[in-house]
Parts: sequence; C-alpha cells; structure tokens
Amino acid sequence: MKKFTVTILGSSAAIPTATRNLSAQLVAYGEQYFLIDCGEGTQMILKQLRIKTNKIGHVFISHLHGDHYYGLIGLISTWHLIGRRTAVHVYGPPELQNIIEIQLNASMTTLSYPLVFHHTQSEVPQMIADAGRLTITTLPLKHRIPTTGFLIKEKPLPRSIRRTETDRYGVPFTFMEKLRAGEDFVDEDGALILNNLLTIEPPAPRSYAYCSDTAWYKPLAEWIHGCTMLYHEATFMNDKAQAAEDKMHSTAAQAAQIALMAGAGKLLLGHFSARYDDLSLLQGEAEEFFSPVVIVEDGETYEIGN
Amino acid sequence: MKKFTVTILGSSAAIPTATRNLSAQLVAYGEQYFLIDCGEGTQMILKQLRIKTNKIGHVFISHLHGDHYYGLIGLISTWHLIGRRTAVHVYGPPELQNIIEIQLNASMTTLSYPLVFHHTQSEVPQMIADAGRLTITTLPLKHRIPTTGFLIKEKPLPRSIRRTETDRYGVPFTFMEKLRAGEDFVDEDGALILNNLLTIEPPAPRSYAYCSDTAWYKPLAEWIHGCTMLYHEATFMNDKAQAAEDKMHSTAAQAAQIALMAGAGKLLLGHFSARYDDLSLLQGEAEEFFSPVVIVEDGETYEIGN
Repeated sequence: MKKFTVTILGSSAAIPTATRNLSAQLVAYGEQYFLIDCGEGTQMILKQLRIKTNKIGHVFISHLHGDHYYGLIGLISTWHLIGRRTAVHVYGPPELQNIIEIQLNASMTTLSYPLVFHHTQSEVPQMIADAGRLTITTLPLKHRIPTTGFLIKEKPLPRSIRRTETDRYGVPFTFMEKLRAGEDFVDEDGALILNNLLTIEPPAPRSYAYCSDTAWYKPLAEWIHGCTMLYHEATFMNDKAQAAEDKMHSTAAQAAQIALMAGAGKLLLGHFSARYDDLSLLQGEAEEFFSPVVIVEDGETYEIGN
Repeated sequence: MKKFTVTILGSSAAIPTATRNLSAQLVAYGEQYFLIDCGEGTQMILKQLRIKTNKIGHVFISHLHGDHYYGLIGLISTWHLIGRRTAVHVYGPPELQNIIEIQLNASMTTLSYPLVFHHTQSEVPQMIADAGRLTITTLPLKHRIPTTGFLIKEKPLPRSIRRTETDRYGVPFTFMEKLRAGEDFVDEDGALILNNLLTIEPPAPRSYAYCSDTAWYKPLAEWIHGCTMLYHEATFMNDKAQAAEDKMHSTAAQAAQIALMAGAGKLLLGHFSARYDDLSLLQGEAEEFFSPVVIVEDGETYEIGN
C-alpha cells in the first residue's frame, strides 16, 4: 500500500509567527507530491525540510488571500532557475493566472518547463484532477472571497482474487476482471458462488480533505463524508466566536462538529490566529465534540491511514 | 551626528541558500528606516532581527527580477493586517504598481494606510526623494531589464559658528545664516574677515550607494564619486567573467574597479551566486584593486561612516 502523508509546511493564519509559517502543505502519495497552498517563504521551508520539489507536479491554491499564495511566484521562478523540465499544473481562482503571468512578463521570463493553469470555481464540488491512483475534487468553502478546499482521494482498489478458491470453483480467466469489480460467479452447473468467497475486500480508499479558510459550512460534512483525515481551519476559539463569524473563519469547536458529522477518521486543526499561545485550549474545545484531534506542528508529517 | 547604517537582510543571487536570503537591505538614518529591495521572506527576516518595520517609510525596488521584490506584497499586506496608519512610499519600475494592485484587488483589500507609488526610470540619474536630512537619487544600471541603483546621501550640513570669534569681530545676528552658508564677513571698517576664521567646517556628508544588479558600467563611478560606502553586486568571480557578461552581472574584480574609480570609502560585496562556497576568493580578487573590501553577511549591520 502506498504511503500517503501530509507534511505541514505552515499553519499560521494571516501573519507568520516565530514558530509557524504561512499556509502550505505537502501531500505525498508514494513518489507523487501535491502542494496545497503556498504562503510566502514556502520554497525556503521545502528546502529546509530537504523535500525534492521537482516531484511536485500539482499545486492547489484555495483562495487569493496572500497568506495562502504569495510564495507561489517564487517557487515557480526557482524551478525555472534550476532548469526544471517537467510540467507543473496549478489549480486556483482564475485571477491567479494573471497575477503569475504579469510577474513573469515583468522579468521577461520564459519558463524552462510547461506551467499549466486550471481555473477553479467555488459554486459546486468538481473533480479537477485525475492523477494516477488519486482524484482531486474541489470543496466550495464559505469565506470572504471565492475559496475552495480540496479532497484528495484514492480511487477504489479492485478486489484481490483468492487463487485457491477460483481454482476450486473453476472460474475462467476471462471472468477475473468482473470478479475484481465485485460480480458474483455462476458456474457451469448454474450454481451461484458469492463474490466474497472468491475475492478479498481491498483496503478502503483513503482520503484527505483540506478545508481552509472557511466559516462554519454544513454542506462540507456531506461532501467529505467518511474521509480518512480532515484538516480544518480553527483560526479562533469560542471566546472569539463573533470574530470568527464576522471574518468568515471557524472556531476549533466548529471544526470538530464538521469532523463529527462527516464521520472523519481524524481531525487536524491548523491556521491558528497568532493571538493564541496555548493551543491545547483549542484542542480541548474540539475534543468536546470529536476525537482524535491533532494540533498540527510545522515540519511534522502525518500519515493518512485507516 | 546621526547614526547611519545598513543592515543586510539578504545577499544571495537568484535563489536563497542555507545561509543567505534573497536581496534586501535596511538603511537606518537615526529613526528613519529605508528598505532597499525586498526578496521573498524579507518580512520574516525583519521579524527575526526584531526590526520595527513601522519605521520604514520608503521602499526602493531596483528592478523586477523576483529575487529583488517578491517579498514586497507580503510586507505590504502584513502592515495592513497589523493596522499600520502611516504612509509608505514605494519607488520602482512602473509595472510594480500594477503587480501590487492586482494582488490587493484579488483579495479585496483596502489598505489601512496610504501606499504611494513613485515610478522610476533607468535612463538618467534622478533625485526621487527628499527625506529630511537625506536625498535619494536613482543610478541607472546595466542589466537585462530596466534597473536602477540608489544613492542615499546626506545634505551638506551648515558650517558651525565660532561664537567667541563672531563676538570678537562684531558679526551681527542677521548675518549668521550667510556665515553658515560659507560667506566671508566685511566689518563696518571695511575689513574682510574670512569665513573659516568665524566658522567650523561641518563633517563631510556621508553617502551610501546600492548598485545591484548590474554588469560593469563605468558611468556609475562618476555618479557615486566620493561615496562613503558602496554596495556593489559581485555575482561571479573571474572564472565566470563570460557568464557575468552574458547575464549582465559583475565579477568581484569589476566591483572593486568601480569602487577604485569612484574613490569610495569602503566596498561591500554581495549578491553572490550560490555556486561559491569560499567567498574569500572573491574578496581576494577584489582586493587586487581596492581596499577595504567586505564580504557581507546576512543579519550584519555596517556603519556608513567617514
């Protein structure tokens, strides 16, 4: 089973702090790397963590508040300076393309590699990328400007054949594909052999949902239902519930309520306001509703596992 | 006499390294702060060095290669987020204004403070700012895209009155202004009293010249003649003289030759290619022509003194 992880590159809201960088995450699925958001300084963090950035083929930008994307132009430029050849696909709001292109034009840069923009919309969830064993789907969020989260999900694996059983029941080679897809088998005497006698249930598809920035938004729970791991912003605590509503951010408790309704496997909290020194208080508020809750740390890697 | 210093925030060329950030410098003149260039991550460096960024009233951008300005939008945004009220003046190529404004528009941000753009041209030197006791003048440089350096210079100080001498010669109060400006005095008997009997020569005006990025460009030596301290890029050594010419950068030796012809007081070398581990070799090449030569270090402060 491929290793499926997320490394937190930055988890501070709006302004970098002494211990937390601006929003960025690296999702790794085997040798495939996906970057989600790219705050200022992300290329330096990637370098510090010795992450091979040329494995990043897809970059997903949630929205155009600077703390989520000001580092993208620098990363794009550095890839050019080190002579990257393989394509980079960037997914984000339409204006992002213009913002990047006028900066490349101002420096008269023609990139050494193909940079392909894919425009997101924030009206309805949409599958925006089919990348090997994974699909990536946008999740409309509720924020001050158009914003989407992202659901990165394994495609269902085929069922595994129990070779001794298929031999015993004389299943022909030509039926194996249907068997892997879950069909029952009828032998030449007309007897029904149930699929689960002949195959083994594959591991359930794993999935990771990134939901930042957003106010409390109930439809999310349905769109990400059953996700293995949910990263949900928790900019504030209950003491600032009104600020959360006004600024269209979430409290730790709201993040946990979404995780509960979604039946998520695990909840990562991040995007913390710089005002909170003791983040265990946010964890406590979240754990009133859901468990397990993790307060992410920059530079840490979390496994997306069942 | 006011303290006049430059703090190197970044001195790497093109790509950040483990020990050097992208181009940025803070010039301090008493309580007045001036930022020259602003590579990605500059706001983080300023924070690490505990520099009070609200004292920065002027930002000078040399050119629109990303390693010299990608950090500006983040700094501008952070000032807004912390509720800055005082104006910031930004000097740079005309396209810079559009690049900043479309990013502010994309986030629907109306800044909490006035941001005033001043467009530079790279045809002839031009005084672009008159800031208290200082003037700032652009220095056209020779690079792949329009680029200017900056000369930050004290205005000449008035001469100081020798009170005992002006009493002795009966200089009236109404003549003091002319005395400070250097005029000789004629007393009521028609006798000429030379100015230097009545006044003291003020300290020579101090000045700092920032020249990056540029190929070898001889007119510079005249424009910055007599400067107290010169920061000149030295991207390459003589082993890469051809690369320097092709990419319109300078070698350490060329930087020193400009310092020599300009009669500079001291030469700071920076903007080093990441290829050089042992920068004492660049220093050696420069010292063939000029002394003293300093290989700058990020985070270090250098006094601009006579």
